[in-house]
Order: sequence, then structure tokens, then C-alpha cells
Amino acid sequence: MANILEFIDSNKERYIEELKGFLGYPSISNNPANKKDVEECAMYLKQHLEKIGMENAKVYPTDGHPVVYADWLHAGNDKPTALVYGHYDVQPVDPIDLWTSPPFKAEVRNGSIYARGSADDKGQVMVHLKALEAHLKNNKSLPVNLKIIIEGEEEIGSMHLDDFIAEHKDLLKADVVIISDTAMYDKGYPAIGYALRGLCYMQVELTGPNRDLHSGQFGGAVENPINALAKMITRLKDDKGRILIDGFYDNVLPLSEEERTEFRKLPFDDNKYMESLKVDELFGEEGYSTLERIWARPTLDCNGIWGGFTGEGAKTVLPSKAYAKISMRLVPNQEPEKIEKLFTAYIKKIAPKSVKVSVKGLHHGKPAITPIDSKWVKAAFEAMKQAFGKEPVFIREGGSIPIVVTFQEILKAPAVLLGFGLPDENAHSPDENMNLDNFYKGIKTSSIFYNELANLTK
Amino acid sequence: MANILEFIDSNKERYIEELKGFLGYPSISNNPANKKDVEECAMYLKQHLEKIGMENAKVYPTDGHPVVYADWLHAGNDKPTALVYGHYDVQPVDPIDLWTSPPFKAEVRNGSIYARGSADDKGQVMVHLKALEAHLKNNKSLPVNLKIIIEGEEEIGSMHLDDFIAEHKDLLKADVVIISDTAMYDKGYPAIGYALRGLCYMQVELTGPNRDLHSGQFGGAVENPINALAKMITRLKDDKGRILIDGFYDNVLPLSEEERTEFRKLPFDDNKYMESLKVDELFGEEGYSTLERIWARPTLDCNGIWGGFTGEGAKTVLPSKAYAKISMRLVPNQEPEKIEKLFTAYIKKIAPKSVKVSVKGLHHGKPAITPIDSKWVKAAFEAMKQAFGKEPVFIREGGSIPIVVTFQEILKAPAVLLGFGLPDENAHSPDENMNLDNFYKGIKTSSIFYNELANLTK
Repeated sequence: MANILEFIDSNKERYIEELKGFLGYPSISNNPANKKDVEECAMYLKQHLEKIGMENAKVYPTDGHPVVYADWLHAGNDKPTALVYGHYDVQPVDPIDLWTSPPFKAEVRNGSIYARGSADDKGQVMVHLKALEAHLKNNKSLPVNLKIIIEGEEEIGSMHLDDFIAEHKDLLKADVVIISDTAMYDKGYPAIGYALRGLCYMQVELTGPNRDLHSGQFGGAVENPINALAKMITRLKDDKGRILIDGFYDNVLPLSEEERTEFRKLPFDDNKYMESLKVDELFGEEGYSTLERIWARPTLDCNGIWGGFTGEGAKTVLPSKAYAKISMRLVPNQEPEKIEKLFTAYIKKIAPKSVKVSVKGLHHGKPAITPIDSKWVKAAFEAMKQAFGKEPVFIREGGSIPIVVTFQEILKAPAVLLGFGLPDENAHSPDENMNLDNFYKGIKTSSIFYNELANLTK
Repeated sequence: MANILEFIDSNKERYIEELKGFLGYPSISNNPANKKDVEECAMYLKQHLEKIGMENAKVYPTDGHPVVYADWLHAGNDKPTALVYGHYDVQPVDPIDLWTSPPFKAEVRNGSIYARGSADDKGQVMVHLKALEAHLKNNKSLPVNLKIIIEGEEEIGSMHLDDFIAEHKDLLKADVVIISDTAMYDKGYPAIGYALRGLCYMQVELTGPNRDLHSGQFGGAVENPINALAKMITRLKDDKGRILIDGFYDNVLPLSEEERTEFRKLPFDDNKYMESLKVDELFGEEGYSTLERIWARPTLDCNGIWGGFTGEGAKTVLPSKAYAKISMRLVPNQEPEKIEKLFTAYIKKIAPKSVKVSVKGLHHGKPAITPIDSKWVKAAFEAMKQAFGKEPVFIREGGSIPIVVTFQEILKAPAVLLGFGLPDENAHSPDENMNLDNFYKGIKTSSIFYNELANLTK
């Protein structure tokens, strides 16, 4: 590895110039006017992949923006195959006035490179391209079989990627997926993301009387569906934040002592958190810290509620209907389909006889986890530790990254989230930037990670 | 009285012709295009009042439609003064296609007169005009001092009547107010209305975090204001329908045994009621019948609720805000101002520390009651019993009739509701009509009632 790390150190200036070139494409995926820019950016990537020695580089058209693919598969059948994922499309640049330098003319200031897409996600894609290049230029080979897929629609919901993956299952087959599209925990805290929460999003509709009634003429005689809905929502969680749906926790993978120890190492200040949200008190499941609650425990939230008169002033209606959108964030190994059934059964159980209830599922997302003691995570840990000179921390994501679930579902491959951005690098905002120190260390991390993977069985 | 009742019997045909004339004015108060019709109708009433022998008949302009007034005050200082209230404006006629005969060309069919305003309220106004006429033509006098006020804005919320009453306090001063603008309990059930519920209408706003949050990134760590609001609403009433606000029942006038006995005499079928509302179960305060719950017990209903995402599909927001409109129907002797204070204090008491709460009052209405053992109610009972040949029933109104409260507030006069309409006479709908038998019996009731009042001390 020594020659590779030395090579990386001696090519920093060139990397910056190349990254500037990549960042120069205004590949804004949500704007039809940029369609050509997006295509040119894909073509640039294909050529760049060929130039660094990757094989089978190809721009695959989709019904939306193209997917770029390349591979290098000569490490041997006994070596694992890794699939690297990133995206080359970027967010719009509005409000343009708030940018210090033009968003598509990258500029280095104070050790960071400023441009739209620098942190999210072109800088992180370039990290892998340069790591691959370092191996291929110096050793004429990669230590591991490697595939890379770079999509052009991440910022618009990866609209066509699920279909693409399903249609190219064999092409993309891999033992592990490496995703570099997230942030480190904080400055000086390189991190490995290893789990995501899933989602079960439901809608509940209550019907009381068959029409809106006058609250004077009928109030007191019939159940009001809003009051009934409030009662039902109250019965979904107890005062200690625990969800009361029968069987809800059955498949929850408990946090291991090791994970809890890791989380406790992280700097997190509840007071600062409260101050940032302007709340006087936090509320969550008893017995868990804030990070544990967000990352590793299932939750239930009303995302929306409506019924009756919601305009200005007073209208004395006793409404016929009341609605709520209620979603549950799931953790491994909860299954959204099963949770939907349990939720529906519980709602029907607690609904008073005085109202009719209908329940429908609106959205599902599976949770995902690659255990921190898995070989893939250990390899990532080792690589990051060597590159950053510091042990990385383990983090989970409270939300979902749909592409991770797609890989898990279709390719049956675990994912490791190696993010080299920082939380304050303005992804999606003006003056987006990426710290160059993390950029270089990211290249080293990836280079070492490929090496570490080569020591593992498939 | 014999000569008067005979006179009424022998003038039925003329009454119908005169009523048809009154019903011919399209005095639709909510349509600016009918402004002249409304004015002409007011002028017609003034002239009619003069013709039957009433004095000081005058059309009083307001900032909206005019008020018609007349009086006859020669019964003597020892006799009470009654104020009769009605309205000459009517609802719009849409959908016009559903009328069997033109809404402003009254037609008699099957013993009822069909026209817009027949039941609500021109027919009932004509009842009093013909009762007054019967006395004045036959006896050249009235047995009681009597004032009559007929407004032109009832169907648009009596917008200018409060001011008019306040400005003409002395002119309208009376010992009792007779309101003929409601319905009998049912066919064959003449009724005396003697109480109304009041209203205290509040709005509650909860603020959780200072901005809408992503439910994945934050869900589980902070209180969701919708969930908190649901919990708070649940704590407003217990499972037996009893309101839990501290001190809420302090001033509630309990139903007397006499009232409960009267209510029990009324035909009321919970099963039919449930069928008409398409509910499988009724819900109300334990220990009370449906009529008691609607008429004589205070209630609490959510009239509206909203917060978070209420559009189509799934949006994973943990909202910053949640709102509810919550109103309480009040009964004598609850005071809306006091209830507003109790509600506000209770809401603040039960709000979790994790949210901020703000409460505001949107609308107040006082409850009203004229006890069924009061002399005014007894006189009405006697009059109705003689005219209908049957004892009337006692009913209350679950809603408010704001004008009753205004009379109570400004004139300090109790009200008796003598309604001669029927619940199924399509007030506000096509084919509005009034049963002519009730119309004639109404004239007799009113004539006798004036006589009965003359026997009472002021």
C-alpha cells in the first residue's frame, strides 16, 4: 500500500484540477433545461473511468437520466466483489445570490472546495475514482473485484434506478455495497454508517355520523370522530414513549452493548439539541439516549391530521370525518408488511363502536443493518482508522436511504456507508463545499478499504 | 274569547290570500339583487300593521335591511308588555329546479301552503298579525301591551339587530319576548321551547419544534405536537362522556325531575336516530337520555383539527404545529367568560412541557332558560292547550338562537319559543311549506296567549 498512499499524496493538485472539471458540469437533474449538461456529465464519467483503467465503462440510458457503469473483475473468483454507488446529479443552485463564488466554477478557499455537488456527491464519487486510479496506475490491478454505478437521478428520488437494478441484477451482483453519499458524524469524527430505519406509513379515516352535523343540535348525542381519533392516537403510545400496538416490538433487534458503548463515545449535547429545536424538553422512549432513539429504536409519529372546520373563525360543525397520517420508523428486523397488519388490527381493536374506521398503507420501506461486528464493517473500520489516523465512530441513520434498501432487496448485498462529507458543508444550500483534507483522506480510506476487502472471503 | 275564535274560523280563506300576498315578496336577504324586494316587503308589513290597528308602525333603516316595528300600549300600566319577534327575510331558492311550484307564487296543496318563507318565518309572522287583528277588530283593543319587531336579516346572521336593540332599548322594553321562528316537536306535538344552550368556542395552537422536521432524522427524540394535541383532547372528556375541565360543571343548573318527566313523554327512538345518522352506537354523558344530552347538558366537541401534511400520499414530516378548534355547548347557568378561563387554565395544566401552547376564544354565546314553572311558560302552555286541544310538550334547543340571548342580555326579558312550523317542512330547502292547520291553530294560540298574559303581573 505504501506506493499507493505516496502516489495519492503526490497527486493532490491534479486531483483538485480534475474535481474542478467534474464540478463544472451543471448536472441539475430536476431541471429539463439541464438535460444536456446531465448527459455530458455522464459521458465525462464514462471517459474518466476508461482513462483510469476501469473496464466495460458504459452510459446506460434510462427513461430519465442515464446511469454510468464500469467494472474491473480480474481479482479472482475467490475474492469478493464490491459495488460502489454514487451519483453525479446535483441540486438546483437557487438562491444564486447567496453564493460567494459561482456554483459551477469550483473555487478553493480555506482548505475546502466550493461548488454545487462538491460534498453531495461529486466530491465523494471522485474519491473512489482516484482510489481506483491509484491502484490501477501503480499495480495495474485492483485487489478486489469492483463494480461502480453512478446514477443521475438521486436528487429527484432515484426514479428509474430501482428498475435499472432489477433489470441488471447479474451485471450488478456483488458481495458488499459501498455507499459514499453521507456525512461524517462531525468534524474530526470519521464515521461508518451501518444501519438505516425503515418506514410503514399509514392513513386512518374515521367516519362518525353520515354527514356533518350542527354541534348545537347534535353535540352530546353522538361520538365526534375527531375526539374519537384523538383517543385512538393517544392509545398508540404510552407516557413513556413506548408503542402499544400488539406485537410491534416482536422483531426488534435490540441494541447491542457494543453499539450503545460506541454511541456513548459520540459528542452529543441534549441541551444544545433542545436549543436548536427551541423545545423545553425532549420526549422519547424511556431508557434510551437521544441518538439511540433516533437511530436504533422504532417510533410512531402523526405526520398529519385533519377534520372538520379548519378555516378562520368559528363554525359549529360536528364533523362526519376525521383523518390522520401516521407513520412508524422501523428498525431491523421489523418488516413493514407485518407492521402494517399489526397497526391495522390494533386500530380496529381500539376504535369505538360509535365510529367506522378504515385504514390503508401508503408507503413501505425496509430497515437495513450491516452488523458492526461483520467483516465488511471491520474492514471499513480498519481502512478509515489507517487513513484518518483515528478510530472511526459507528453511526446509524434515523431515516431511510431508499437505494440501500433496493440493493438489499434485489442484490441481497449488505451496505457500508462511508461518508466523507461534513454535516455543515451546505449540501442542498448555497456555498456547498467539501473539506479537502477529508477528500484526500477519503481517497486513502477507499484505497485501503479495497485492499482490506481482498483479505475477506466472499 | 269566543267571538275572537269564531272570527278566526270564519276568516281562514282571507288569511290564506293575505299570506300569499306576503309570500309573494322575494325578500332574499343574502342577495344584493333583492334589496328592493326586501324593502318593499318591509313597507308591506308596516302598512299591514297599520291596517290591522297597530300603532307607531315604522320601517327603521339599518346599515343592512330595515327593521319593522309597531306597538299597541293601551292595556294599562298594570298589564305586562310582550314583545313579539319574527323575521320577513327568506333563504335563497336554489336549486330552483326542485320546486314543485314557483317559490314566490304560494300554492296550497294537501293542506299546506308551499312557498319560500312559508314556515321560516313569514307564515309564523302572519300568525301574530292575524291574532292581533282578531283582537283589535273585535274588541278594539288588545288584552296586553304589545310590541312587535320584524327583522330583515335573520337568514344572514341578524347582522345589525344587536346594535338596533341596544340603540332602541327603551322602545323595545318588555316583560316577556315571544319568538315564533321554530318548529313544533313533531306532527301532533305542539311545543313550548323554554331554553337554549350557549357556546364557548376556543382555538388551541401547539408548537413543538421550531420548524417542520424530517420524521426519520428526528422521530423519537422530540414530542410531536399532533400526538401531544391528541393526548390533550383525550383528557378533556372521560370515557363516560363527562368533561374533565376543573370547575366546568360548577354552575350547571340540573335538570328538574319535572323536566325529565316531560322529556320522557316525548316520542324519541334511539334506534331510528342511529339509523338516520348511520352510526352503530350513540355516545354521550352517562346517566342522561339522548334528548337530555342534546338539550340540557353541556358538551364538548372538536369542531376542527389540523396539522402536518394533509395532502395525497406520504410525506414524512414531524410538524412544528398542530391546531384544534374546540367548542363547548353551555347550559344555564354556565357563563361563557368563566368557561373560557377554566378551559384555558386546564389546557395549560395538561399541556406537556415538551410543547408550547396558546389558547384563544373565538366566540361566546350565553345559554338561556325560562323555567317551565314560570308564569310566562304556564300562560303559553294554557294557550296552546286550548288552541290545539292537546297539552303541549316542553322542549329545549341544543343550539343557540342568538337573538334570544340578545333580548336576555339587553332587555333582561325572558323568552318563550312558540313555534308553529314542523321539522319536515323544508325550511331552507325546495318545497318549503307550512301546514295550514298549524297556521290556524297558531293564530288561535297567539290570540289566547295575549289574553293569558293579561292575567299576569308584570
